[in-house]
Amino acid sequence: MKIGIVSRTDRQDALELIQSIVTYLEECHVSIEIEKRVTDVLTIYNEYSTNLKDMTSDIVLCIGGDGTVLYAQHTLSPKKIPVLGINMGTVGFLTEVDPEDIFECLDKLLSYDFFIEERMQLDINCDNEWKTVLNELVLMTNQPAKMLDLTVRVDDEIVDEIHADGLIISTPNGSTAYAMSAGGPIVDPRVDASLIIPICPFKLNSRPIIVPSSSTITIKFNRIDKKALAVLDGVTEKVYSHDDEIRIRKSEHTAHFVRFTKKFYDSVNKKLTIVG
Amino acid sequence: MKIGIVSRTDRQDALELIQSIVTYLEECHVSIEIEKRVTDVLTIYNEYSTNLKDMTSDIVLCIGGDGTVLYAQHTLSPKKIPVLGINMGTVGFLTEVDPEDIFECLDKLLSYDFFIEERMQLDINCDNEWKTVLNELVLMTNQPAKMLDLTVRVDDEIVDEIHADGLIISTPNGSTAYAMSAGGPIVDPRVDASLIIPICPFKLNSRPIIVPSSSTITIKFNRIDKKALAVLDGVTEKVYSHDDEIRIRKSEHTAHFVRFTKKFYDSVNKKLTIVG
Amino acid sequence: MKIGIVSRTDRQDALELIQSIVTYLEECHVSIEIEKRVTDVLTIYNEYSTNLKDMTSDIVLCIGGDGTVLYAQHTLSPKKIPVLGINMGTVGFLTEVDPEDIFECLDKLLSYDFFIEERMQLDINCDNEWKTVLNELVLMTNQPAKMLDLTVRVDDEIVDEIHADGLIISTPNGSTAYAMSAGGPIVDPRVDASLIIPICPFKLNSRPIIVPSSSTITIKFNRIDKKALAVLDGVTEKVYSHDDEIRIRKSEHTAHFVRFTKKFYDSVNKKLTIVG
Amino acid sequence: MKIGIVSRTDRQDALELIQSIVTYLEECHVSIEIEKRVTDVLTIYNEYSTNLKDMTSDIVLCIGGDGTVLYAQHTLSPKKIPVLGINMGTVGFLTEVDPEDIFECLDKLLSYDFFIEERMQLDINCDNEWKTVLNELVLMTNQPAKMLDLTVRVDDEIVDEIHADGLIISTPNGSTAYAMSAGGPIVDPRVDASLIIPICPFKLNSRPIIVPSSSTITIKFNRIDKKALAVLDGVTEKVYSHDDEIRIRKSEHTAHFVRFTKKFYDSVNKKLTIVG
Repeated sequence: MKIGIVSRTDRQDALELIQSIVTYLEECHVSIEIEKRVTDVLTIYNEYSTNLKDMTSDIVLCIGGDGTVLYAQHTLSPKKIPVLGINMGTVGFLTEVDPEDIFECLDKLLSYDFFIEERMQLDINCDNEWKTVLNELVLMTNQPAKMLDLTVRVDDEIVDEIHADGLIISTPNGSTAYAMSAGGPIVDPRVDASLIIPICPFKLNSRPIIVPSSSTITIKFNRIDKKALAVLDGVTEKVYSHDDEIRIRKSEHTAHFVRFTKKFYDSVNKKLTIVG
Repeated sequence: MKIGIVSRTDRQDALELIQSIVTYLEECHVSIEIEKRVTDVLTIYNEYSTNLKDMTSDIVLCIGGDGTVLYAQHTLSPKKIPVLGINMGTVGFLTEVDPEDIFECLDKLLSYDFFIEERMQLDINCDNEWKTVLNELVLMTNQPAKMLDLTVRVDDEIVDEIHADGLIISTPNGSTAYAMSAGGPIVDPRVDASLIIPICPFKLNSRPIIVPSSSTITIKFNRIDKKALAVLDGVTEKVYSHDDEIRIRKSEHTAHFVRFTKKFYDSVNKKLTIVG
Repeated sequence: MKIGIVSRTDRQDALELIQSIVTYLEECHVSIEIEKRVTDVLTIYNEYSTNLKDMTSDIVLCIGGDGTVLYAQHTLSPKKIPVLGINMGTVGFLTEVDPEDIFECLDKLLSYDFFIEERMQLDINCDNEWKTVLNELVLMTNQPAKMLDLTVRVDDEIVDEIHADGLIISTPNGSTAYAMSAGGPIVDPRVDASLIIPICPFKLNSRPIIVPSSSTITIKFNRIDKKALAVLDGVTEKVYSHDDEIRIRKSEHTAHFVRFTKKFYDSVNKKLTIVG
Repeated sequence: MKIGIVSRTDRQDALELIQSIVTYLEECHVSIEIEKRVTDVLTIYNEYSTNLKDMTSDIVLCIGGDGTVLYAQHTLSPKKIPVLGINMGTVGFLTEVDPEDIFECLDKLLSYDFFIEERMQLDINCDNEWKTVLNELVLMTNQPAKMLDLTVRVDDEIVDEIHADGLIISTPNGSTAYAMSAGGPIVDPRVDASLIIPICPFKLNSRPIIVPSSSTITIKFNRIDKKALAVLDGVTEKVYSHDDEIRIRKSEHTAHFVRFTKKFYDSVNKKLTIVG
């Protein structure tokens, strides 16, 4: 078995945890890859240094919060490499393990006592460029206090003319992330659907809409004078304008996660309690 | 072709519409069945009198509102007889045709210029009895101002302990009915899912939950001293108490509707505008 | 100083607490009144037996939950007798003290180390009968799954035609009770206002409305065939029908509460955390 | 009587309306002031040219939408000059008259057949600078998809630690503006209160909070690395950072509006219907 490591490098506790993990894996004679961004800081592990895109591990440990997991998944999901998130942040919906349980989990990994969960992703297409998201695409106004005017189509039928601060197109996985703050429902990851959720809509009868993931969602911008920021899985990626048409479709690549339990609702409820 | 007629009998305009329709169908030499409840009032049509459960029509016209359509569907869906709702009420999500367009629609029916849409239903099981709903099961307290305490499981995992005025388990079709008043999202009828929606929940972080329709939802009552009313598609059917366990599963029977257009969102938006 | 005691009698821990309190007050030579419903159970205290309406205490201890406090306040508020709620239930917005802190609080009471907080109440008038509520009036359909049709006026201007499961008219004090489950805002008790909150409204653009407490709110029932249950502070009191007109006005009587701290938001946040 | 005119200058229909109004007022021998920004475009009226801040009219007509009214009010409210909004936009909560009714309204003005409504405003203080708003202060993250961490105090009591996209502090007048899109209640303008409304809060049990207008609301920023944009009545004014403390208090200046009817709810409902 080969195990990869990706991590935040701005926290001392994360760096210390890496050292404990590497020591343990070395003792077990497991092959190791460590992302170059990490070995640039922890230079003692230069021998394991690998760029994320070149990793060939069976499993990659992601040490940080949901952001770290999303970052690694984007590169690893086309290669079907499963990820195990180790939570160094506050509330993690994508992390599976707390640092104090890491050695118990490594034992389970090494004895193949785990399973792989696949999660649907969405492809965002515009101008022959495409990107994949595990959680959501957010379109936001780039002028504070000025709303966006969007036309949203599902399979070429107009769903809504949206006049709002922004719009979220989310996977079921993203339903417990930003979509929830904007008033969306919890969607079981086994439901084969996408969520369309306006942010602070002007029309009071606007509602979140759940559409089949097999649909193509198309978004056009109605105002020549307004631009929209696109935030993909929490990272601002692009500015869209009047001529752009965005198409969103289920991705052919799923994200792969290492899980030790199948209890989805249990983990949602634990995190909802923390969230308050 | 044989065409059946089911109708409200408490409105003169509905009875007059029936007479126009029958005259037209007789001229076209179409076979006719009229529900006995209707011929008890319109006795001139006794020759066409049939009990709903004995109908063998190719299509059944339902003259009234959503209630009339739901009433007819419950009996007709196991026989896969499609229904065409003619709206005599105010806002109809299940009716397809307004009275003034009826003859144009009859022409389309007779020339087979329509299509059939299937909609998922849910089976509600308790104590070896089962009922089927097209829209929703509502569980409500039978003591005003006293909340229910329910445990909801999905496939044997506890989803939530709900302390609320009530609980809605809805199909996608029901998502634009009562579930929407309770804060639920719009769910495209092509999404293969059920909705779990608490009514006025005590916990402020409660959210609507969307689960796969292949799941079994199980509901238990936690308080010995409280009873719950079960309202199935708007009709109060049963009182449940502490010993009861309700199991909800996708029905093997779908409801069949005659449609002249495939525009789901168009009809939702029209009705939302009426609703306000 | 004379201290009165009102309590739930169905819980052993409440009865035991009463005995500890009485022993303590007797030692301090404080005059005591105990509600007759309590002395019917704790007959050893027959000498202190008083009907609630005859109490003349300086302060009345209410042992139980919010229901017990509401019950006592209704009789005591016209006499301006302040109440101190001792929480034997789960979540209490009206109770101030947990049982384990009772003796510390009694010491503060006896040394006049507390202050009195007044809370606005509403008078509900119909047919020359009137009732006072500290939290809220709830009007609910008495037929499950059938909505009410109400016209709500504020100072003779029509505010809304409401088609909903029910309607809440709440004080600021009630804003953290049932009104909150129905989607209402938190209203600081110092705000001189009433809340009008529809329960599961059919119109999706319905919103809670905050009106000046000096307004007269008038409610009429639009449907001859429907009746409404009136639930006042959690107790079902009356059935209203088509001919009735309900008028709601700020009461001239405020409720009086013993407080040891002025921290309103602190107590709201504590209770919200428990509520989830 | 002297009448002032303020207007958008980017719309031909607005400029034409000004000409009709001026002709009419000249015929009636009414004194006229026209804002310099308008006479820079309509140079034929140079004789009436006045800077907004120098206006001494009895009433100022604002031709445009809510933005134009807000712009004029900020300068005119300290001078207690009432404003009459003439709606050239789409949905106007602050405009009172449609263009086709303007001459009827001018007649009413000239015969003193109107009344003046005062509306509460809020003073926003920071660093010895202060600004006044009629509708609301919005604090928003200046990094897309990154939340703000704020501590909100009311009269020195901590109300909430808010982790959200932003925060709205609104007057009752602003309750039907942006605050409503963010989920706030409708607050009758006679209610003496301010609204605190989080935008897309992370904590699911966050609720809008209504506090007495006599309170001082204080906002502090908890994160050294994050900045907040302040949008005052729709105009971006300032960037706040970690060291800033914002204090919000009822302004001593009210805004003055010319009204021909007292029907607040009627106008809200008309506009809600347009809004959908």
